[in-house]
Amino acid sequence: MHKIVLIGAGRIGRIHGRNAAANPRVELAGVVDVVDAAAQALAKEHGVPVRTLDDALADESVAGVIVASSTDTHLDYSLRAAAAGKAVFCEKPIDQDLTRAKSAAKELARARLLLAFNRRFDPNFQALKAKLDSGAVGRLESLQITSNDPAPPPPSYVAVSGGLFKDMAIHDFDMARWLLGEEPVEVYASGSCLVDPEIGKLGDVDTARTVLKTTGGRLCVISNSRRSGFGYDQRIEAYASAGMVRADNVLESTVQAWNENGAAADKFQNFFLDRYAEAYRREMEHFADILDGAAPSVGYADGVAALALAEAAAESSRSGKVVRL
Amino acid sequence: MHKIVLIGAGRIGRIHGRNAAANPRVELAGVVDVVDAAAQALAKEHGVPVRTLDDALADESVAGVIVASSTDTHLDYSLRAAAAGKAVFCEKPIDQDLTRAKSAAKELARARLLLAFNRRFDPNFQALKAKLDSGAVGRLESLQITSNDPAPPPPSYVAVSGGLFKDMAIHDFDMARWLLGEEPVEVYASGSCLVDPEIGKLGDVDTARTVLKTTGGRLCVISNSRRSGFGYDQRIEAYASAGMVRADNVLESTVQAWNENGAAADKFQNFFLDRYAEAYRREMEHFADILDGAAPSVGYADGVAALALAEAAAESSRSGKVVRL
Amino acid sequence: MHKIVLIGAGRIGRIHGRNAAANPRVELAGVVDVVDAAAQALAKEHGVPVRTLDDALADESVAGVIVASSTDTHLDYSLRAAAAGKAVFCEKPIDQDLTRAKSAAKELARARLLLAFNRRFDPNFQALKAKLDSGAVGRLESLQITSNDPAPPPPSYVAVSGGLFKDMAIHDFDMARWLLGEEPVEVYASGSCLVDPEIGKLGDVDTARTVLKTTGGRLCVISNSRRSGFGYDQRIEAYASAGMVRADNVLESTVQAWNENGAAADKFQNFFLDRYAEAYRREMEHFADILDGAAPSVGYADGVAALALAEAAAESSRSGKVVRL
Amino acid sequence: MHKIVLIGAGRIGRIHGRNAAANPRVELAGVVDVVDAAAQALAKEHGVPVRTLDDALADESVAGVIVASSTDTHLDYSLRAAAAGKAVFCEKPIDQDLTRAKSAAKELARARLLLAFNRRFDPNFQALKAKLDSGAVGRLESLQITSNDPAPPPPSYVAVSGGLFKDMAIHDFDMARWLLGEEPVEVYASGSCLVDPEIGKLGDVDTARTVLKTTGGRLCVISNSRRSGFGYDQRIEAYASAGMVRADNVLESTVQAWNENGAAADKFQNFFLDRYAEAYRREMEHFADILDGAAPSVGYADGVAALALAEAAAESSRSGKVVRL
Repeated sequence: MHKIVLIGAGRIGRIHGRNAAANPRVELAGVVDVVDAAAQALAKEHGVPVRTLDDALADESVAGVIVASSTDTHLDYSLRAAAAGKAVFCEKPIDQDLTRAKSAAKELARARLLLAFNRRFDPNFQALKAKLDSGAVGRLESLQITSNDPAPPPPSYVAVSGGLFKDMAIHDFDMARWLLGEEPVEVYASGSCLVDPEIGKLGDVDTARTVLKTTGGRLCVISNSRRSGFGYDQRIEAYASAGMVRADNVLESTVQAWNENGAAADKFQNFFLDRYAEAYRREMEHFADILDGAAPSVGYADGVAALALAEAAAESSRSGKVVRL
Repeated sequence: MHKIVLIGAGRIGRIHGRNAAANPRVELAGVVDVVDAAAQALAKEHGVPVRTLDDALADESVAGVIVASSTDTHLDYSLRAAAAGKAVFCEKPIDQDLTRAKSAAKELARARLLLAFNRRFDPNFQALKAKLDSGAVGRLESLQITSNDPAPPPPSYVAVSGGLFKDMAIHDFDMARWLLGEEPVEVYASGSCLVDPEIGKLGDVDTARTVLKTTGGRLCVISNSRRSGFGYDQRIEAYASAGMVRADNVLESTVQAWNENGAAADKFQNFFLDRYAEAYRREMEHFADILDGAAPSVGYADGVAALALAEAAAESSRSGKVVRL
Repeated sequence: MHKIVLIGAGRIGRIHGRNAAANPRVELAGVVDVVDAAAQALAKEHGVPVRTLDDALADESVAGVIVASSTDTHLDYSLRAAAAGKAVFCEKPIDQDLTRAKSAAKELARARLLLAFNRRFDPNFQALKAKLDSGAVGRLESLQITSNDPAPPPPSYVAVSGGLFKDMAIHDFDMARWLLGEEPVEVYASGSCLVDPEIGKLGDVDTARTVLKTTGGRLCVISNSRRSGFGYDQRIEAYASAGMVRADNVLESTVQAWNENGAAADKFQNFFLDRYAEAYRREMEHFADILDGAAPSVGYADGVAALALAEAAAESSRSGKVVRL
Repeated sequence: MHKIVLIGAGRIGRIHGRNAAANPRVELAGVVDVVDAAAQALAKEHGVPVRTLDDALADESVAGVIVASSTDTHLDYSLRAAAAGKAVFCEKPIDQDLTRAKSAAKELARARLLLAFNRRFDPNFQALKAKLDSGAVGRLESLQITSNDPAPPPPSYVAVSGGLFKDMAIHDFDMARWLLGEEPVEVYASGSCLVDPEIGKLGDVDTARTVLKTTGGRLCVISNSRRSGFGYDQRIEAYASAGMVRADNVLESTVQAWNENGAAADKFQNFFLDRYAEAYRREMEHFADILDGAAPSVGYADGVAALALAEAAAESSRSGKVVRL
């Protein structure tokens, strides 16, 4: 069992903490958080000590670190953990600023760093990718990624979020890169504020469409809205030379009610922690693989590349011009 | 173009009249009805003469007759038309009384008589049968036939209908025979009056389950209700040695609405004349085949066999005992 | 019954001819075609005379004209028919050239001209629009129009087609205008040649994504491919403030086969004449309404507007730049 | 945390052991098994001692016992555990013999005994029942319970299984009772051997349909096959006065592949331990409730009642006669 320390006892940190505790291959060996009460509560839940970051990094028995603290600390803590020889499980994004993110290339490009783009670990999207990779539908030509949140965040969150493209669509840029198999070289994004005028006042958009074109001419559309009105809307359609593969939304149950208005299915899952519960478990499993010596399937370079696409899309949406990478 | 005469200008007669008029292989050459106004109206719609049955049967240029008059005349008119050398398109049932129906065996067993069990001509059920016949799912083992009307008929109709098993389930007994490929030898039916107490007062049931077992042990369940509450519910599941084939209900459109309660499909088709519009057209097409010399794909013997199953089911429901054929 | 004359006895002319013949409100009174054999064959099928255009337009008993001849004659014949006081049913597009199309504004802007964008008459898309118009899902925000042909046309067709945007996507531009309720003011299109290299050699694309933004910021993505590989792929998703409405593809039957690989639905309809058979019938019904005095629900101005969007998309795809209207 | 001891370290015992270990409300305090190696292995996995039954029952700190040993021991161990004052979590069936099962009424009718009919705890079936109980579809009239195993067990298992009705359909009899809300008073079952002739040689059937009628005339059909050929087929349809509610099968993922043959969904889940994983977790949760003082939602009397229905169905299938209870 590899000992790991968790930095960050907030919402996502608690998820990773529970998955670490439940995974027989790793041992949660401490919790670090700048808010002492949060650290104490989570540490108590798992019967492990509260620690300082310095202490954790100095402890030779600690093999890995989970960086689930606030976004502005991701890069710094990852650098420190890597420098201390630890494997790193870093929440996305690697940073909100592309220049800053790139500046760590020397230290992090070859680090044992898992950048936690959780959707790569979702069983549905993994099954979609496996189908594409199997060749069953031929050669990929284009992608439709639909990614709508159930309801918009409060303006206070939007204000510090980095904007729709960096905060929300960054997952979709990563999915696009993962599935397209070629790097995007052209980015066009068109955004509007249709959901909440407060978001517009902050200079952000809440509804967007982004078109990517790759080196080989493959096309990808990313559809985003801060509010679907019908649940957490996470779908992908992959068009290929011999057909199409799609992954659909997840429902709360298989129950349907039929009445004079037709057939009604159950609700769509509404909460990302439910929708991606298994993805988070598989992330932890992959981190155990890395601690065993495996190479990260998604790492620092992927974090930088997704951020670069997000910046390009934000620029395109602002300027109304196509951005070439 | 084969000249045909239509007997019966009621609801189902009008359907057959229009399909005859629209079919380039047959020519509607007259309408017969005991209610003169009905005959006049339909004849006028198609620009053909009102005729008497005697006149129509005596006309050598008339090749075929559609018997769409009231149930108690089906057998008599079919006999007279067959005796006159006409091909016969006879609405179901051949008669409400099994003994009477059987009595015509000598005259009708080899007649060019199409017994109009419309569901055999439905594109969905034909596709289901084609799939079974293709061997794609192996050897048939059991059937589930679901057949629920949208809403119960008025008690006045129920009183003269012959009862649920002869009036409604007779279609399902024919579908069972068509698909099972073996004759049923055991019939058990259990019925209740749950929908409309007036139906119970008439000695009938409105809800029933019938189990058939064939010579080779294949099992078939028929589920009937006089009221589904969600439209015209016509489904079949066929279980075979290498899988299952099912035909589902037909919706009014492909439109779905997604909201916070989940995904809602459009209404189920509610009216049998919509649901089976194409089936009625294909029936007429097959009658044209018969006029060209083809053998009827479903005829007198099938009408008698379905009626025998309906009587057995009614008896089982009444007695609470299994009936062996 | 309004007498109408059909110009054009090719594939689409034959469809309109049959629907006219079957519609009790209009009377097919002649067929015109530059290819005499084609005119003769279709005229014979319906028992009507072959006529010249001059003769038909001079005939005061003729109330309407269907222009289903080759694209380069649409505008000219429509002008001549309108000048002769006839109601016009004109196949799309009004013309391949925007300047030429616009030049007829004086004569055609107020003409009784039905521009035959058939998809507006499809029951599924009409049901979708009715749902949106009902307010059941709130205020429209964005659209996803998916429109893929089953298989690419031969290069010889592509060469004279006007290109993907004018030939194929023009339907989608019309659907976008019909549903968006606001005029698009920004067009971006990204196209690739991924399906058939011969199409690329002709300077055309076979795969494209187009993004429209309206005056009010509504967004619309149009996805096109000349080859889906799985049938005629015609879907729309409309995202609104309180949910989403979608219209899905049409299947050949409701039959599913379940085996160890899962549940397989029946094939998607493959042929546009099947998919839109009812739409063509409803178009003819609407033409009868126009002959009765109703205003066309879609006319000359819509034809010009869709063409303008197609030209803008083609220019954007060529230049790699956003086009503002 | 309530201390509990697990009797039985076989397949189902291991499941319950893991769920007990993962549940923060109970503490696994020992494993009992007649096969020492099995007990040792499971005890080691959870870091708990191997114990004898006598020792476990004598230990006052042990609050509950899970009886997951072989079927013939269920009743005896439940009696001994209840006599020792423990709460009992007893795997189904309570016994294979109805007379024997009934003989324990005095001791067990009021015992704190959870009879582990896992399907009552499945989220999909619970959602179906909640929908029915909410009154959203009106008053229940009839049920269709479909319950087919993916593949037949070996004849050696069938020989000691008690037969299809007691071994397999007993779950469905319990579901019927749970949902019908009225006790069945008439049972008819028709069975065949169509899947594996070896099963027939053992005097058992592998394919069956059972019809139940309740005191109030509600009807229920149970469809069973030892081999579906397409996965673990567990569906329920509940017909009510204002519509229908159904629970469908569970798929391995939401992925669909579309090609020229149509749309293919992913595989159906094949293994009952996957299909009911969450149900087993909820069972353990309910056992924790019972240890906290709650009344069992399903207990001894339900086990006896389901067994009585299974015996009646087996008798009906054997005799070809309807059985009245």
